[in-house]
Amino acid sequence: MTKILVYTKLEDTPQKQLVNGLADSTTIEFAVNLREEKVLQALSEATIVIGNAPVNHWNNPHNHVKFWQLDSAGFDQYKNLDLNFPIANMGDYYARNCAETIVTGLFSFYRGISDLVRLQKDKHWVGSKIRKQLQSIAGKKVVILGAGAIALYAREMLTAFGCEVILTARKNPEAEIHDKAELLKILPDTDAVINTLPGSAEKYVDSNFIEAMKNGSVYANVGRGNTTDEESLINALESGKLAGAILDVTEVEPLPVESKLWEMNQVILTQHSGGGDENEVSGKVNHFIKNVNKFLKAEQPDSLIDLNRGY
Amino acid sequence: MTKILVYTKLEDTPQKQLVNGLADSTTIEFAVNLREEKVLQALSEATIVIGNAPVNHWNNPHNHVKFWQLDSAGFDQYKNLDLNFPIANMGDYYARNCAETIVTGLFSFYRGISDLVRLQKDKHWVGSKIRKQLQSIAGKKVVILGAGAIALYAREMLTAFGCEVILTARKNPEAEIHDKAELLKILPDTDAVINTLPGSAEKYVDSNFIEAMKNGSVYANVGRGNTTDEESLINALESGKLAGAILDVTEVEPLPVESKLWEMNQVILTQHSGGGDENEVSGKVNHFIKNVNKFLKAEQPDSLIDLNRGY
Repeated sequence: MTKILVYTKLEDTPQKQLVNGLADSTTIEFAVNLREEKVLQALSEATIVIGNAPVNHWNNPHNHVKFWQLDSAGFDQYKNLDLNFPIANMGDYYARNCAETIVTGLFSFYRGISDLVRLQKDKHWVGSKIRKQLQSIAGKKVVILGAGAIALYAREMLTAFGCEVILTARKNPEAEIHDKAELLKILPDTDAVINTLPGSAEKYVDSNFIEAMKNGSVYANVGRGNTTDEESLINALESGKLAGAILDVTEVEPLPVESKLWEMNQVILTQHSGGGDENEVSGKVNHFIKNVNKFLKAEQPDSLIDLNRGY
Repeated sequence: MTKILVYTKLEDTPQKQLVNGLADSTTIEFAVNLREEKVLQALSEATIVIGNAPVNHWNNPHNHVKFWQLDSAGFDQYKNLDLNFPIANMGDYYARNCAETIVTGLFSFYRGISDLVRLQKDKHWVGSKIRKQLQSIAGKKVVILGAGAIALYAREMLTAFGCEVILTARKNPEAEIHDKAELLKILPDTDAVINTLPGSAEKYVDSNFIEAMKNGSVYANVGRGNTTDEESLINALESGKLAGAILDVTEVEPLPVESKLWEMNQVILTQHSGGGDENEVSGKVNHFIKNVNKFLKAEQPDSLIDLNRGY
């Protein structure tokens, strides 16, 4: 029997879905049902690990592990681990939803949806007065940081609304700009920046970057919170240098109640919900099943990663 | 000198823009500066009228009028007038903004933006809990009522997000469906309906229409408020038959404070702001100038309409 240890917390229905989907030649234990020492013992005996184990668990014996399936796209927290077996992440599983949320958030800013929702709460009809503060989406110049799946989906969506889109990435040939100095030169003529960067790009959007942005432009982040100098961002929003922000991620999550971002009406906080949807869990479990069964049949699992390479 | 009477209310800057843009061979009077009898006298002497005159003004002498430029796209209120000179509306001037707002509103519903804005007002981080109530936009089946400029823009936008889109219109060859019975047949398999109909399609969306819609589907209206039986819509929202609505227009505007729509969190009210943006007025005045100057040079103005044809 192949022993599988599952760290992902699942409700009854998806748990049954997972158990029923995996080959009969496996036994499955769920970490959530075990005391910690039992989890470590299960890890020492497991051949396959599913889900995002705590980093420090890997300091314990795990010499039977032959495959690890993460349940996230990001894996920055594991970058210093030295593990010698194949590891897969969720690949582009969340990418389309993330692109939908961040682009919808940006469009909501331009079309005043967040202000209109607040007006509705107060039963306050302002009618045509709000029209002057709306912006046409068509014609906006948008720079996307990154050229992965989220960026590619977002480019397609933005283009259909009449935006001009430029992708930037160090090496990815999908990007038009590969150099930060060149990027900084076009920022003064850019209406919106969408950040899709991984956590390895720490503080990529720093005070210099924000200073170079066009006055009255908008910043959106669906990458990782640590890629942005949040203090500089807040200053730029307070001064009016930036007209607004759409943040799916922040430096600290949950966002502390003291954060000034909560009270800014020009900010839309999507609370790291970008990747989600009503069918997310069953889809994720299907991905686990498919990838683990590939491994069991000695096929190559999808979305293999290199922990030290970054996203 | 060609006498021009302007009904459109303009602030100082766009008023100057209009005066400077029109040919030197014209004299311009603004109705807003005149007592009503003076307005009627100006109408009796005018060759060109700009803006939406009150319907009853046309019962008064106007036998010099040779061209009337409306400042709206809709002109339902004038449908019973019998006027024998060319009349132009604003054509598709508002169409792209309207499509941007109604599609953004629909996407905001699917991605939970309105709920997230309310959570932000309460500084309430729910994080991943909200993911279960989000829906992927990709794959949604959307029916658009109408096949005019708003519908065509909306189709392009929706398609880029991965929606399947069907247009319906009595005659327009851009539409796939031309028959209401056929339309009612596909509604049970439709996730969202976007209404772009003119006021001449009174109560097109009635209780039978709503009854035929899929349980849990969404209704969006950027056409005219009178095209929807609002009482049936509210009932369907209260019962959960419809999961939500995005309404740029309502039967009565401003929406009365007693309306149940205000308190429905599954409804997004955009307060007839769909056509607007920060550059709307200067763009509209440019359109006036261009079209009036065409008339003065004996060229055919753009967007000529037939009052009795409907939109």
